[in-house]
Amino acid sequence: MSKPTPLSGYPEFLPAERAVEREVIARLARTFELHGYANIETRAVEPLERLSKGGEIDKELYVLRRLHADDQGGDAGLGLHFDLTVPFARYVLEHAGQLEFPFRRYQVQPAWRGERPQEGRYRQFTQMDIDVVGKDELPFHFDVEVVRVMVEALGTLSLPPLSFQLNNRKLIQGFYRGLGVPDVTAAIRAIDKLDKQSPESVAELLVSNAGATPEQAQTCLTLAEIRVSDTSFVERVRSLGVQDDLLETGLAELAAVVEGCATAVSGNQGQVTVEANLRIARGLDYYTGTVVEIFMAGYERLKSVGAGGRYDALASDGRTTYPGVGVSFGVSRTLVPLIAEGVLRGSRPVPSAVLVALADEDSRASAQEVADRLRRRGIPTEVAASPQKFGKQIRYAERRGIPYVWFEQPDGGHEVKDIRSGDQGAADPDAWTPPAEDLHQTIVSNTRENQ
Amino acid sequence: MSKPTPLSGYPEFLPAERAVEREVIARLARTFELHGYANIETRAVEPLERLSKGGEIDKELYVLRRLHADDQGGDAGLGLHFDLTVPFARYVLEHAGQLEFPFRRYQVQPAWRGERPQEGRYRQFTQMDIDVVGKDELPFHFDVEVVRVMVEALGTLSLPPLSFQLNNRKLIQGFYRGLGVPDVTAAIRAIDKLDKQSPESVAELLVSNAGATPEQAQTCLTLAEIRVSDTSFVERVRSLGVQDDLLETGLAELAAVVEGCATAVSGNQGQVTVEANLRIARGLDYYTGTVVEIFMAGYERLKSVGAGGRYDALASDGRTTYPGVGVSFGVSRTLVPLIAEGVLRGSRPVPSAVLVALADEDSRASAQEVADRLRRRGIPTEVAASPQKFGKQIRYAERRGIPYVWFEQPDGGHEVKDIRSGDQGAADPDAWTPPAEDLHQTIVSNTRENQ
Repeated sequence: MSKPTPLSGYPEFLPAERAVEREVIARLARTFELHGYANIETRAVEPLERLSKGGEIDKELYVLRRLHADDQGGDAGLGLHFDLTVPFARYVLEHAGQLEFPFRRYQVQPAWRGERPQEGRYRQFTQMDIDVVGKDELPFHFDVEVVRVMVEALGTLSLPPLSFQLNNRKLIQGFYRGLGVPDVTAAIRAIDKLDKQSPESVAELLVSNAGATPEQAQTCLTLAEIRVSDTSFVERVRSLGVQDDLLETGLAELAAVVEGCATAVSGNQGQVTVEANLRIARGLDYYTGTVVEIFMAGYERLKSVGAGGRYDALASDGRTTYPGVGVSFGVSRTLVPLIAEGVLRGSRPVPSAVLVALADEDSRASAQEVADRLRRRGIPTEVAASPQKFGKQIRYAERRGIPYVWFEQPDGGHEVKDIRSGDQGAADPDAWTPPAEDLHQTIVSNTRENQ
Repeated sequence: MSKPTPLSGYPEFLPAERAVEREVIARLARTFELHGYANIETRAVEPLERLSKGGEIDKELYVLRRLHADDQGGDAGLGLHFDLTVPFARYVLEHAGQLEFPFRRYQVQPAWRGERPQEGRYRQFTQMDIDVVGKDELPFHFDVEVVRVMVEALGTLSLPPLSFQLNNRKLIQGFYRGLGVPDVTAAIRAIDKLDKQSPESVAELLVSNAGATPEQAQTCLTLAEIRVSDTSFVERVRSLGVQDDLLETGLAELAAVVEGCATAVSGNQGQVTVEANLRIARGLDYYTGTVVEIFMAGYERLKSVGAGGRYDALASDGRTTYPGVGVSFGVSRTLVPLIAEGVLRGSRPVPSAVLVALADEDSRASAQEVADRLRRRGIPTEVAASPQKFGKQIRYAERRGIPYVWFEQPDGGHEVKDIRSGDQGAADPDAWTPPAEDLHQTIVSNTRENQ
């Protein structure tokens, strides 16, 4: 069979790159678990009717067919999930009787979309989502928690600076209603175009589609311009003179989320910041309160690298409704470009911290015994593949980024060489330990120097 | 939307069950990494021609189709992988220029097969594979290593006893050849049926299909009956009087693998045993030397829970051949039945070790602060969802298996209650630590009591 060519839209990592992805996922998982979020995995397929959006099935969906299927039985009508929210909602409904609510979960899995592949958009991509879902009700304080936990989690990574842009659907809906804009939904849809169109053309849309007067349109644009990193937006919105109960609820909720993130933000030294940005609308999705989009400095071309919000009906079986709030982080969307550009790289392609050199093939058993003594104390170790000249064995280690080479001496003693410095000295296989930074594969980040 | 019904062949775990799977995967990964195996992940799809077996595409394969695809471009001719070996072979060919050989890797991902669902056989299932692949050549000692590493790794789990059944294709091929059986391949195919058919009918097959004399057939059956846990099989085979160079190589290799596993076996107190079992043939696959199947005591109905062996041409691009040796462990095949029967269960469905109780909603901020102080020291903690009566909050913790409830006292002091024993005492949020066994979700195993 010939050499395969890469498949567009299906990025794959080399071993050292995969180590970066694994470490990113491990750090996020650690924070999520410290906050009580349980991991689940859902199957890759869902019935097509679950994958439809408002009754319409997206043409970017991948449908499964069993080759030479002799029946249209169990396999008919299944597609690959395109996000982790749809399968999570189905999981909640299917297993509701065996879950405790409020239910905190995180999930890290691939999803599939038949999009035209481009940077940051792939046909298979990994997402990492956290959500809290309640039964019948879910107190607002979970909105604060979920955003705060994601801020804290992303603050443990060495990514370029991330910015959480927050808004609240109640705030903008209440504002438009209080202002007297006839079609609030059309107004949201128009404002959502501000990242692609000029304020003037959005103002025209507000007039033509939402039925606003030119003055109302201008006030809507003024609202959308408010972007601050504290709760001062409350006074700025009030100064626009619009009165509405829903607006007041939205202002209070957004202020609570911004304030609730303050300690998490101050703890991460500018790695992650939080802003109230009143033009964030998140389209016409199912969001009903808090909305958030996450952007990465220098990578605005990727659009958001994460997003989420509050949905009062994440799932419903007709009798019971399950409200939820969650944030999704695009692992592939973020890491594939950062790794391709060398912003993040893995310290080495192998887990091994030590290579035990071989004097000859007969000493493999004793080399293996040395390796086992090191492994017993948690030191990843491999034995040389063949008893080449020691210089070649050292280069074998070098090519793999293995920092230490271990030599058994003819007199039964042991020596270990740091092949970076060349330092070599006596070592006891039951006591010697490499420095912590050499023990495991780690992420090497160039983001800090670049700024 | 109505309550969804489970999809046959796509098992999903509840949160506490998923914790078992995660811990099993983590323990295996830890051993693999201690031996220098690097983790990779491959995309879920492969071109159909890569998924074909000997030119024939299996009808159990799932093919992808983009719904409403307006072109047959990049999406045409892709299927979901049915194991992790085919995508690994393709990965090796595609990235060969950027890999260092011999290349040790492990991989844990789902695979898909359109089989009729039954216990141990699923349409989506997770496998965990280790392989070593060389470029042009791969020394035999990697056969010993790979089996030994899998023995060691599976010995860290609390499964019912596992038995590695080992053989060597050179041994049986050489034996049949030396014996003078005309069609060696047909003989292997006949012997492979011994687990389904009587020795008498297999003997008939050896005569009718492989052209053996009745005496030769009987000698083949005598070989197949040899099953020992040490290297005494060498003398027993030699006593059958067959002379062949390939047989000798096979005997030496099998003896080396059995001997090489001895220390790993003695270290795990009977959790995993190793036997030479000369009826193991692994069908007509691509195996060329070492073959292994793994069985679980009391679960023989699942057939093997793992398998593997040596293949002299794992991959080839026409110019370069990549020999490999590997073992695959069926994570879903093993865990789904064990969890369903309660042999393994998770200690609790949530990561949280502590629930901080709430006296009233106004104390949420200070409760959150206590939780953060505990989390800073690695203690998974959640704050109560609502300020119910303390008895209700304790039952909230109980239902989630959270062992400790934390109370802020009106005088500013702190107390923590072990809700299992009822013991309650003063505690410092910057110093108190639960016992190690309570800190994280763990596996509770009933296998030892059951035996």
